[in-house]
Amino acid sequence: MRVAVQGAGIIGLSIAWRALSAGLDVTVHDDNPARGASNVAAGMLAPVAEAYFGEADLLRLSLASAARWPEFAAGLGEVGYRDDGTLLVGRTGDDLRELARLFQLYADWRLPAEKVDPRALEPALTPRLRGGLLTPGDHQVDPRRVLAALRERVPVSATPPGKVDVTVVATGAWTGQPRGSAIGLPGGGAVVGLPVRPVHGEVLRLRGEPSIRHVVRGYIDGKYVYIVPRKDGEVVVGATTAERGFSTRVTAEGVRDLLDTAIEVLPELADYELVEARAGLRPGTPDNAPLIGRLDPRTIVSTGHYRHGVLLAPITAEVVTSLLLDREPSVDLAPFAPGRFS
Amino acid sequence: MRVAVQGAGIIGLSIAWRALSAGLDVTVHDDNPARGASNVAAGMLAPVAEAYFGEADLLRLSLASAARWPEFAAGLGEVGYRDDGTLLVGRTGDDLRELARLFQLYADWRLPAEKVDPRALEPALTPRLRGGLLTPGDHQVDPRRVLAALRERVPVSATPPGKVDVTVVATGAWTGQPRGSAIGLPGGGAVVGLPVRPVHGEVLRLRGEPSIRHVVRGYIDGKYVYIVPRKDGEVVVGATTAERGFSTRVTAEGVRDLLDTAIEVLPELADYELVEARAGLRPGTPDNAPLIGRLDPRTIVSTGHYRHGVLLAPITAEVVTSLLLDREPSVDLAPFAPGRFS
Repeated sequence: MRVAVQGAGIIGLSIAWRALSAGLDVTVHDDNPARGASNVAAGMLAPVAEAYFGEADLLRLSLASAARWPEFAAGLGEVGYRDDGTLLVGRTGDDLRELARLFQLYADWRLPAEKVDPRALEPALTPRLRGGLLTPGDHQVDPRRVLAALRERVPVSATPPGKVDVTVVATGAWTGQPRGSAIGLPGGGAVVGLPVRPVHGEVLRLRGEPSIRHVVRGYIDGKYVYIVPRKDGEVVVGATTAERGFSTRVTAEGVRDLLDTAIEVLPELADYELVEARAGLRPGTPDNAPLIGRLDPRTIVSTGHYRHGVLLAPITAEVVTSLLLDREPSVDLAPFAPGRFS
Repeated sequence: MRVAVQGAGIIGLSIAWRALSAGLDVTVHDDNPARGASNVAAGMLAPVAEAYFGEADLLRLSLASAARWPEFAAGLGEVGYRDDGTLLVGRTGDDLRELARLFQLYADWRLPAEKVDPRALEPALTPRLRGGLLTPGDHQVDPRRVLAALRERVPVSATPPGKVDVTVVATGAWTGQPRGSAIGLPGGGAVVGLPVRPVHGEVLRLRGEPSIRHVVRGYIDGKYVYIVPRKDGEVVVGATTAERGFSTRVTAEGVRDLLDTAIEVLPELADYELVEARAGLRPGTPDNAPLIGRLDPRTIVSTGHYRHGVLLAPITAEVVTSLLLDREPSVDLAPFAPGRFS
């Protein structure tokens, strides 16, 4: 059986890697890789800190994928996997109320989280913080290293292959667009009509000598920022989400606000080098959960991973490979059926 | 007579262009062009707004060069020359006192300047401004277009030529460094011991549809920023000066502060695209004036132009060409003698 994967983002490449390992005949095609969300992603593997009210199905999928990440990472070599846990920190009374609300959610769902003094764990954080949570099971990985490692293992072509038996659509934010539309299509094709839309997110890359180990998610006077420190000195800062179509403009105000809030949380960032400011397009869906499943006998969809593509890559690769092999997936895919909105 | 110009920044290229036009046999060499100040410069041609207490000699040179810019620009084609004048604007009482002090200086030196309501001239400026000055003789040019036009007219080699009769040293911030030092040398050589040092400056390039015509220099609650709108939609924002050796790191705080102050002055910048954040190295001298003159029978120095390299390019090219031709320069070079500090 010949399989074509459309889209060489982290989802498409992970599926292809897994399917190749299972002995399938797989090719990946993408005429413009690294244009979407994967190359800009921060790489937080945070099923708990990303858990949210009403998203229990997504949480189950996220937890299953997080459990698979250590082995997935080990198979890829050095990809910056780091298990230091995530700190959620707050400053004002309102910020602390938001943390308390999340803490209650985690307790209701029996997720591992504890109240901590943020500066007892990370003394470099601002003394203006007044409370925090630790989610020790939330880890991180460097998505660019993951992409590079996957590309070493999976050949990518710019053009679609000839006749294939099954096509896996992993075209991210471009999935719902008509073929040949002005924005262009990775892999040269897409599934028109699926409710996937681009969600703009700005991400900064700084460089210095981070004195923190944990991923920090700051709730600062009603503003939110995440700070992801890597062992190689890179620090990724982000947070924004905006609906701007396919524009990947990085705005002056977006960068100003991210820097401002991040420096407030971790003052040492002030003197870090600003290396990069970019925007990526996350594939959003109406319920923030991905579309994974068979669309017709010759088409499998795997897209709409929104903010969770890196985290969900291992479980997505596993269940899509199961579908390709006509085996029962290890998790119930009914909540993620591509046709659930129609 | 064979002449070698060391350094392909705006000073070295302007000298070579002028000297070639005068019929001299000139070559330019630089092993790493566009590394210094020229490619990052904002291009303000502002003898008045840049005039400062105690710098009367520099002012005379600046006025002479500004007068030559229209013809110099015309010879280079479309290089973004724009004569809309410069607005100095202030917000707090302290800021207005600084503008009043400058206005008195301009009056003492009989320089063209007038008190204006900034928003009568530029309605897009923030309503929080409380006063302003217009210096109508301060213009602007796009330094990258100037560099590109000069490079079309002047061949640049990466390696020094063989035997020459006279060398013109135009190596900017690297002029005082020993040959072969760790930082590397444009043009592969320098004059050790001249008191030229690198002065770090961060510059942002935004893109949008500027509704202002004037260059704006904002004095905002004790902070300073300049905003240079070009006709092609580029807006250059800068201000910082720092002593950091040869580092060209752009810091998180530097970018944050520039964006913050610029958006305060001109709110529409908030939604502009942030295209570039870079740092350049201005060649600073002890008295902020350049070093222009003969060092020995076979060496002419033309460096140390600090914040004024673009403005001073035409007059510098003219007087150095006069020196090469053994003619009397049109301005008195005694205040700019390279040996004046020893």
